[in-house]
Amino acid sequence: MPSNTFGTLFRVTTFGESHGPAIGVVIDGVPSGVALDVKEVQHELDRRRPGQNAVSTPRKEADVVQVLSGLFEGQTTGAPLAMLITNSDARPGAYDHLREIVRPGHADATWQAKFGIRDHRGGGRASGRETATRVAAGAVAKQLLAPLGAKVLAHVAEIGGVCADTFDEAAIEDNIVRCADALAATKMVEAVAAARADGDSLGGIIEVRASGVPAGWGDPVFDKLDAQLAGALLSIGAVKGFELGGGFASARRRGSENNADATSAGGILGGISNGEAIVARVAVKPTSSISQPQQSVDREGKATTLEIKGRHDPCIAPRAVPVVEAMVALVLVDAWLRQRALVGGA
Amino acid sequence: MPSNTFGTLFRVTTFGESHGPAIGVVIDGVPSGVALDVKEVQHELDRRRPGQNAVSTPRKEADVVQVLSGLFEGQTTGAPLAMLITNSDARPGAYDHLREIVRPGHADATWQAKFGIRDHRGGGRASGRETATRVAAGAVAKQLLAPLGAKVLAHVAEIGGVCADTFDEAAIEDNIVRCADALAATKMVEAVAAARADGDSLGGIIEVRASGVPAGWGDPVFDKLDAQLAGALLSIGAVKGFELGGGFASARRRGSENNADATSAGGILGGISNGEAIVARVAVKPTSSISQPQQSVDREGKATTLEIKGRHDPCIAPRAVPVVEAMVALVLVDAWLRQRALVGGA
Amino acid sequence: MPSNTFGTLFRVTTFGESHGPAIGVVIDGVPSGVALDVKEVQHELDRRRPGQNAVSTPRKEADVVQVLSGLFEGQTTGAPLAMLITNSDARPGAYDHLREIVRPGHADATWQAKFGIRDHRGGGRASGRETATRVAAGAVAKQLLAPLGAKVLAHVAEIGGVCADTFDEAAIEDNIVRCADALAATKMVEAVAAARADGDSLGGIIEVRASGVPAGWGDPVFDKLDAQLAGALLSIGAVKGFELGGGFASARRRGSENNADATSAGGILGGISNGEAIVARVAVKPTSSISQPQQSVDREGKATTLEIKGRHDPCIAPRAVPVVEAMVALVLVDAWLRQRALVGGA
Amino acid sequence: MPSNTFGTLFRVTTFGESHGPAIGVVIDGVPSGVALDVKEVQHELDRRRPGQNAVSTPRKEADVVQVLSGLFEGQTTGAPLAMLITNSDARPGAYDHLREIVRPGHADATWQAKFGIRDHRGGGRASGRETATRVAAGAVAKQLLAPLGAKVLAHVAEIGGVCADTFDEAAIEDNIVRCADALAATKMVEAVAAARADGDSLGGIIEVRASGVPAGWGDPVFDKLDAQLAGALLSIGAVKGFELGGGFASARRRGSENNADATSAGGILGGISNGEAIVARVAVKPTSSISQPQQSVDREGKATTLEIKGRHDPCIAPRAVPVVEAMVALVLVDAWLRQRALVGGA
Repeated sequence: MPSNTFGTLFRVTTFGESHGPAIGVVIDGVPSGVALDVKEVQHELDRRRPGQNAVSTPRKEADVVQVLSGLFEGQTTGAPLAMLITNSDARPGAYDHLREIVRPGHADATWQAKFGIRDHRGGGRASGRETATRVAAGAVAKQLLAPLGAKVLAHVAEIGGVCADTFDEAAIEDNIVRCADALAATKMVEAVAAARADGDSLGGIIEVRASGVPAGWGDPVFDKLDAQLAGALLSIGAVKGFELGGGFASARRRGSENNADATSAGGILGGISNGEAIVARVAVKPTSSISQPQQSVDREGKATTLEIKGRHDPCIAPRAVPVVEAMVALVLVDAWLRQRALVGGA
Repeated sequence: MPSNTFGTLFRVTTFGESHGPAIGVVIDGVPSGVALDVKEVQHELDRRRPGQNAVSTPRKEADVVQVLSGLFEGQTTGAPLAMLITNSDARPGAYDHLREIVRPGHADATWQAKFGIRDHRGGGRASGRETATRVAAGAVAKQLLAPLGAKVLAHVAEIGGVCADTFDEAAIEDNIVRCADALAATKMVEAVAAARADGDSLGGIIEVRASGVPAGWGDPVFDKLDAQLAGALLSIGAVKGFELGGGFASARRRGSENNADATSAGGILGGISNGEAIVARVAVKPTSSISQPQQSVDREGKATTLEIKGRHDPCIAPRAVPVVEAMVALVLVDAWLRQRALVGGA
Repeated sequence: MPSNTFGTLFRVTTFGESHGPAIGVVIDGVPSGVALDVKEVQHELDRRRPGQNAVSTPRKEADVVQVLSGLFEGQTTGAPLAMLITNSDARPGAYDHLREIVRPGHADATWQAKFGIRDHRGGGRASGRETATRVAAGAVAKQLLAPLGAKVLAHVAEIGGVCADTFDEAAIEDNIVRCADALAATKMVEAVAAARADGDSLGGIIEVRASGVPAGWGDPVFDKLDAQLAGALLSIGAVKGFELGGGFASARRRGSENNADATSAGGILGGISNGEAIVARVAVKPTSSISQPQQSVDREGKATTLEIKGRHDPCIAPRAVPVVEAMVALVLVDAWLRQRALVGGA
Repeated sequence: MPSNTFGTLFRVTTFGESHGPAIGVVIDGVPSGVALDVKEVQHELDRRRPGQNAVSTPRKEADVVQVLSGLFEGQTTGAPLAMLITNSDARPGAYDHLREIVRPGHADATWQAKFGIRDHRGGGRASGRETATRVAAGAVAKQLLAPLGAKVLAHVAEIGGVCADTFDEAAIEDNIVRCADALAATKMVEAVAAARADGDSLGGIIEVRASGVPAGWGDPVFDKLDAQLAGALLSIGAVKGFELGGGFASARRRGSENNADATSAGGILGGISNGEAIVARVAVKPTSSISQPQQSVDREGKATTLEIKGRHDPCIAPRAVPVVEAMVALVLVDAWLRQRALVGGA
């Protein structure tokens, strides 16, 4: 049941609740002698942090990262890298009305069923706030991948029926929905605004590309690279689906057609990278917390009307982009280290 | 890099190559004192075995399972359960022409890139034959779930553009495509026959339902139950996509709509089962091995024309049904044992 | 290579360097709904902390524990329990003279060989200070064991040739060497004082008893309970040997004699507890850091004379007592949770 | 509770009961492209097998190893290496009288307590026969270590009060007690014969040396190389104690004396190898199965007199020598692969 550690050789353990004193992450397995730039970690946290713009929650968190161990004179030492983020805008009292009510689409009832006790303050450990520590770890992973020439980049490919048609990497951080198609981005922003005005929310689809991954990373059988990516990405709260390369469309093709399309593999064959860009997509559900009154149940299962007063994102996909990148980076670093263990024979 | 073990408490380790002497599986963590029916294991293997009908490969394998350890007078003892399946129709020589050629859509080139050596005989370890051992383990898992009232059932929901419209559990094993809609099944069989006649293949979509799973199985954060299902199912060679409940469709809905639809969660919230049926779908790509001549490359990357002479499935989805069920059953038994470790406090 | 996590179901991850800002521990797998007393954690830390008396190092550390997560209104929630201890008396500058010298008996040269970089400040991650986080985790484990009736108790059985002859549990915390024989304790204190006066140090033998452990904990084959205890205790820096029950003396007996002695098993048979008290002993080497000038080598291997100016224990055994107890408690809680996963059949 | 797997990157899973059809081992994580000599595996099995001489059990087992997977044209492929040993002299009926009786010093009662069911035939899974599969895996490990210049060698240093005084590697396999001192060996053989004549048994002490291990293998904190060795060696049924280098003698020295003795570290400092020979000793208890009538209890705890009719070793230490070597080799290969994962920075 310990479920708060990710990875085998690059092992990330996270902790902390949404409205507790702090959240944090310990990374064990960081190769030694690597110069780490803590500012880059902070930059990634800034991409994810709440309150950054009109399509995100108004909760204000500086999300300042503090390194507690594992760095010595700017370099990694082989000791665990611990990073801490203090919760500065925790408002546990704002959730008092949820002590007895379970919110639809949230882990409230299931956490209670599993553990018999629940921290109702903003979801406690089940809050999306937990992903900040993933982003911090992912930022370290990205710095390990960069010298190898590998790079992970995600963007929002679809929101509210609006799809990206072009891919301009430079555009992604220039619009608040993080879409690589500037024109589509404008329409996506409007769609989110409309949903918010209705007290409602939207979902979206995020596409992630890992370029520069050499052939030979990943494993056959159970720990296939795509299996690990799927597991990593489905572990993000709002993600409901994953597809690699041709994905669900491949299932509707003939073999001759699918074999002839170089992109259908998505960069992975038999669980092992083939040297081409790895391309995957994830489905992000619309934020479950909406301002409209909703039908719900209390802890005894009695029907009640719920009005959520917390601070929430009208569409979580843009803020999930750095989280998706982080999880993919974590998988890749682990695959890289696993591959190193294998290199050469006796 | 050890990648041939699945699960944490119910730990399944598989071995064996497509054209070696045998394949097998060792399950560690089987609760003791359970009466196991080896005939049920054989029954599941029979559902997966090649050569069973017109939509499967003509390779003839009896796939007879032999229990080597872990059973004493018909009951499990807590010792590892080892099961062996001899390869009776291995024809390594039939693959000699593939020694120097890498097949499109297969793991040939990536295995070579990773390991520097390759067993070219029918894919070696990367062959779909490996899934027989998963099915044997899954059959044990199903027998552990049954007394708890939990049941895993999959069927082919779509092949070649033909979708199942109705769900009749009894129909599934009555047609050779394993579709719960008998009418659709007939059309699917025709579609597969047409593709085969063209020397081509088809993909499909498999839907899996786990009913009777109590609320409280699974874990928050990284080992979410859906994350584990996604990882388990993407570890099946031909699977290219996974979605839970609303899946990709959820990403195109508003929150109010998605919250109101009880099936959108797919039986899991916050990574933990909510007591409703768990429903997921996987995308199965069309078999990469087709009889049509294809463009390919040899080990030096030189272009060549490849004609695959092996024995292959025109559509792998029907035979993948028991494999999908097996992987879901393995995840659920692991989740059940993990939950037991947690039950009650000090 | 990730080596900073201990346990399988009760999983303890530690971090932090001797002279960094803080050390800490994250425990994943704490059963939910348990009322934890943080004061008891502090009490255990006080038993281990430096500067407590004449046989310990003069370094002054309050070792105040702060709980960052996993507790809600005094109870565990199933979320990871994170505890932080700030380093208040870190004096990194006091170790500047060791930047280029490797100390005999320490991990200086081997850490450098492994990682290629070394935090020379008081041993960095290899410092005994790391054991404070083990004690904090062990204090949680003890609180989980208590309601089961299981209790772990260690004492110093031998220092400098002086052996305990009697066992009076109440005496242990009444003398500064933590010996259960008050008379022997007095002589031990004198022996330590004599060694310290010579600028030297002493080793010792710690005996640990776990009472109230029911029959059936532990596992056959590789994860035998004694194997886990041995691994856990040898992971304490200064420990050089382990024996269970009859131990090395058993090797010198005949079978008839050994079988007839109920204490020879030490409470474990075939790796599984037999319901009697588990009794083990560990050998603690004399502190490697002594004030006498010693021959050593610098990083290039050139001979040099080393005078250690840091603050060190003349005999580490008394302060190692709570560390030994902590490691045994961690092993037992893990065995308890593993056993729960197994209880009952399907 | 899965306890039948050893190692992290070089992962050895064993299965099989003493009187079932076969025992076996699956090794996952064997580096690819290594030429393995199966005859060397057989040679190691021959060193351990029963019935080889006057100090071993008369049970006759050929212990012929069969490789089922993972080898292709004589080389490892990166796929799991499975090896099977058929039980040819199983006599389950010979143990019928033990169905209701628990033997002193054996796992009979504890297995029953843990699992609620017991295979009474020669100990079932708890039999020493299980170590044959360790030896097979260890033989593979030795072949991986050899090209690195690392070698593991054990011998019996003490039996029945007779200690080896000299070390002649060539002598070890020339006497049936596997002692490196030919003169002492003669006396040891006499001591064993005397005990056997009395229907009794003897214990012994095995010393193991790993030479050629470079500095830098192993890990700090929990997975210290000595901790892993201790855990590995205590997992052998008859082993009751472990010491590294100075061991228990170090605990009785002053620091100045211990620091000055290069052998006190035993080749490991801070959990990491220092480039010198690793030297450890284990205490082997006298065989619990003796021919003398013994007092015992039945499953209900009623006193009974037990006469063991099975076939047993009067002193298990000589046959434990290859098992000790195997476990040390497994630990070292794992440490080697773990170190490779770390090599170099990003």
